[in-house]
Amino acid sequence: MKSTPYRLGVAGLGTVGAGTIKLLQDQAREIAATAGREIVVTAVNARDKNKKRDCDISVCRWEDDPRAMVTASDIDCLVEMIGGEDGLARELAEGAIDSGKDFITANKAMLAHHGYDLAKRAENKGVSLGYEAAVAGGIPAIKSIREGFAANEISSVTGILNGTCNYILTDMRETGRSFEVVLKEAQEAGYAEADPSFDVDGIDAAHKLALLAGLAFRVKPDFKGLDIRGIRNVSAEDIDYAKELGYRIKLLGSAKRHDNQIIQIMEPCLVPANSPIGAVEGVYNAVATEGHACGHSLLVGRGAGAGPTASAVLSDIIDLARGAGRPMFGVPTSQLTEADWGNPADFESRFYIRLTVIDKPGVIADVSAILRDCEISIEAFLQRGRDPHQPVPVVIVTHEALRRNVRAAATKIAALAASTEEPHVIRIEDF
Amino acid sequence: MKSTPYRLGVAGLGTVGAGTIKLLQDQAREIAATAGREIVVTAVNARDKNKKRDCDISVCRWEDDPRAMVTASDIDCLVEMIGGEDGLARELAEGAIDSGKDFITANKAMLAHHGYDLAKRAENKGVSLGYEAAVAGGIPAIKSIREGFAANEISSVTGILNGTCNYILTDMRETGRSFEVVLKEAQEAGYAEADPSFDVDGIDAAHKLALLAGLAFRVKPDFKGLDIRGIRNVSAEDIDYAKELGYRIKLLGSAKRHDNQIIQIMEPCLVPANSPIGAVEGVYNAVATEGHACGHSLLVGRGAGAGPTASAVLSDIIDLARGAGRPMFGVPTSQLTEADWGNPADFESRFYIRLTVIDKPGVIADVSAILRDCEISIEAFLQRGRDPHQPVPVVIVTHEALRRNVRAAATKIAALAASTEEPHVIRIEDF
Repeated sequence: MKSTPYRLGVAGLGTVGAGTIKLLQDQAREIAATAGREIVVTAVNARDKNKKRDCDISVCRWEDDPRAMVTASDIDCLVEMIGGEDGLARELAEGAIDSGKDFITANKAMLAHHGYDLAKRAENKGVSLGYEAAVAGGIPAIKSIREGFAANEISSVTGILNGTCNYILTDMRETGRSFEVVLKEAQEAGYAEADPSFDVDGIDAAHKLALLAGLAFRVKPDFKGLDIRGIRNVSAEDIDYAKELGYRIKLLGSAKRHDNQIIQIMEPCLVPANSPIGAVEGVYNAVATEGHACGHSLLVGRGAGAGPTASAVLSDIIDLARGAGRPMFGVPTSQLTEADWGNPADFESRFYIRLTVIDKPGVIADVSAILRDCEISIEAFLQRGRDPHQPVPVVIVTHEALRRNVRAAATKIAALAASTEEPHVIRIEDF
Repeated sequence: MKSTPYRLGVAGLGTVGAGTIKLLQDQAREIAATAGREIVVTAVNARDKNKKRDCDISVCRWEDDPRAMVTASDIDCLVEMIGGEDGLARELAEGAIDSGKDFITANKAMLAHHGYDLAKRAENKGVSLGYEAAVAGGIPAIKSIREGFAANEISSVTGILNGTCNYILTDMRETGRSFEVVLKEAQEAGYAEADPSFDVDGIDAAHKLALLAGLAFRVKPDFKGLDIRGIRNVSAEDIDYAKELGYRIKLLGSAKRHDNQIIQIMEPCLVPANSPIGAVEGVYNAVATEGHACGHSLLVGRGAGAGPTASAVLSDIIDLARGAGRPMFGVPTSQLTEADWGNPADFESRFYIRLTVIDKPGVIADVSAILRDCEISIEAFLQRGRDPHQPVPVVIVTHEALRRNVRAAATKIAALAASTEEPHVIRIEDF
C-alpha cells in the first residue's frame, strides 16, 4: 500500500460529478484496496455551492473558481465534469495538464475536437488523460480496445452509442408510434433533452465514434469529416418492414478499414433482430469490434446515468492512482497516423430501399432496370397487398452494393413519373 | 520508450503457444509501441523440437527442459502453455514466481485449484500473474471485472463459458438432433475432444466460473464446492419446448450474492431467446455482470482458438511489460475474504419442469397439489395434443421458487403412479 493518497479536484457537481464522489465515498475501502492507496477528494467546485447533492462535500475544500484547482499543489488529478466542447472545460483540461496533473473527463465533445492536442500535451508533461466515461459509461470500451485487444489489427468498430436514440427506436418498434410522438413522451419523462438535437441528430454518438475510431485504428481522430445522420427520418413503416424482414433499426456508428482507407459513418442501419447487437434495446449501448486475432466481440451495457458514468470515471481514477495510465489512443501521438479517410459513398453493404410508387404495370420493370444499370442486384422484394393506380410501398433488399450506386439508383427512381416519394435507403449491417 | 526489452520464455508450443509467438512476431512494431518497449521471446520449449509450427522459433534459444527457463537470468516472464492442473505446469508456475519472474498462463484448471496460492506467492515476490487467456480468450473478461468494474459491488457474474457446449446446444436447436449425434459429429469435425467429458460435463466452464467468482466477489475461489452439471442430459425435447416458450438452453455458470452468501452453480439454463445473451450462439462465449453502479453488462466473444487466446495472452504481456500488473483477484490476497458459500438449493428462480405422465383424468390435479404443497406457483402450463392412457409430456413454468422446493416437488411427482419418467427440471435465468 502506497502511503501517499491520490488527490482529486472535481470540477462540476452535476449528476456525474456528484455521483462520482458518492461512489468513491461509498466504496472508499474497497477502492483503496484496488488502487493500492487511498483516494481522496481535496477540492470541489460547481456553479451553486448550496445545492443539495447526494454526496458529502463538507470534507473537501470548496473552490469558487475551478481554475484554482489547476495549480493547487494538493491535487494530483483534475476531474472535469462540466462539459462543453470549448470554454471552461478546455481551459481546465489544458491548464491542469500543463501544470503536471492527470486529467479525467467524460467530455466527448471536447475530446472529439481537441483530444489529439490534449493527448500530446499530456505526453509532453508525462501525465495521463482518462476518458473511459466519455464513451458508453457502463461498458469498458476504451479499456477493452486499448488494452484487451491491444495486439490486434482492428478492422472495424461499430456501436450503438446513444441511449436516447436506442430508447426511442425501441419504443417506436414496440408501440408502432412515430418518432415525433415517442420523442415528445421521452422529453416529458426526462429521458430526452428539451433540445434533443445533440442526441437524435447523432452528434453525441458521432463524438464517441470519432474517439473509438482514433483508438481502434491508431489514427488522429477526425470528427469534422464524419458523415452523420440521426434518427429523425426513421419512420414507423421502415421499422415495421425491418421487423418483417428479420431486422431492427439501430443508430449505428461504424468505422471500418476499406483497402488503405478508413470509412466512418453514423446513420440508422438495419441489424439482424436475432443477433446479440440486435437484441440491445432501450437505453443500452453496445460496441462491436473485429480484431484480426481475437475475432468478433461485442460489449453491451448502460451508456449513461450517474452510476455507469461514475463507475467508468473511477475505473480511470484507480488506473491513474496506480500509475497505470496509458497513452490516450493506446500509443504515443507520434505513432498515430493521419488516416486516409475514405468516402462513405465507397461503403459496400447490403441495402434496404423503400419506394412509394403508383401501383401500375411496368413500374417494377422500370425500377429493376434502374437497379441493373446501377449494378445493384436484388436479394428480396416485398410488396404487401395491391392498390391499383394508388401509391403503394415497395421494399427492396439488395445484395452487396456500393453506396454511391444505391444513391444514384434512388435518385433515378425518385425521378420516375410513378414515384410519389423519395425512396428511403437504409444500410444493412450484418453481424 | 524503455530501452530494455521485456523478455519472455514460452513453455509449450501447441496451438496457443505457437499462436502467441506468431501474433507477437506479426505485430512486433505495434505491440512495442503499445507496451512502450520491445518484447522478445528469449527461449522456448516444447515436447518436440522439430515439429512444423506456424511461428519462427529459430530466433530463440531452445530449452530441452522448460525448468531451465525458471531460473534463466535473461527471462522476465514465463508464459506457460502446457496445461494440466498439477505436474509440470504447476512446478513451472511456482518456480518462475519464486525466482522473481512474472508468470502468464491460460491454464484455468491449475488456477481454479491453485490460483490463490500462486497469487500469494506472486505477491510475496512482487511479481505479476496474468491469466486473461484462462477465461473466454476473445473477451477481456478478467480485465473488465478487475479494472473496468473495479469500483462496483458486483452482485452476480454469469457466463456461457464453454464454446464446445454452446456449439452443441446451438446445433441441437437448429437441427433438432440429439446430444449424442451432434457430439459425435463435432468430434469427427475436431470441434470436440475425443474424450469430451472435460467440456460437456461442465468442468472446464466451472474452472472459469470459480476464477470469475473469486475476482468479482473478492473471495478466495472455491472450485471444489462448485455444483456442476453438464449438458449430457439436455434433450431435443427440452430444447424444442424451450423454443416454444421463447427461451434457449445454454450451459450457464452463475455466481450470485444471496444475503451474505455466495451461491455458485454450473448447469444448463433457459435464457430468453430475445435477450443479447440468448443470441450468443455457436462457439461464442459470454460474460454478464451486475454491478451496483454500472448496472448490467454483457461481454461476448470467441472463447477459444489460437487467435483469441493469443490475443488475451498478449494483452497480459503488454500490461506486465508496462509494469501495470494487478493483483490476481483485483486486491491483495490479504484483502480476499473466505466466502460463505451458499447452498444452491437456496437459489431462487423460475423453473421449467417437463413431466412425462399418463394422460388420464386427475393426474394434473395431483401434480398441481404437489406443487402447491411445495409452495410453488405455476406461471404457465403446456400440454401439446392428447393421447389418452399413454405417456405424454407436460411442461410447467413456475414463478420464482426455491430450488429445494422444486427438487422436492420433482421427487414427489416422480413417485406418482402416473409418472413414467423422472421430471426434467431446468432453471430459468432472466436477463
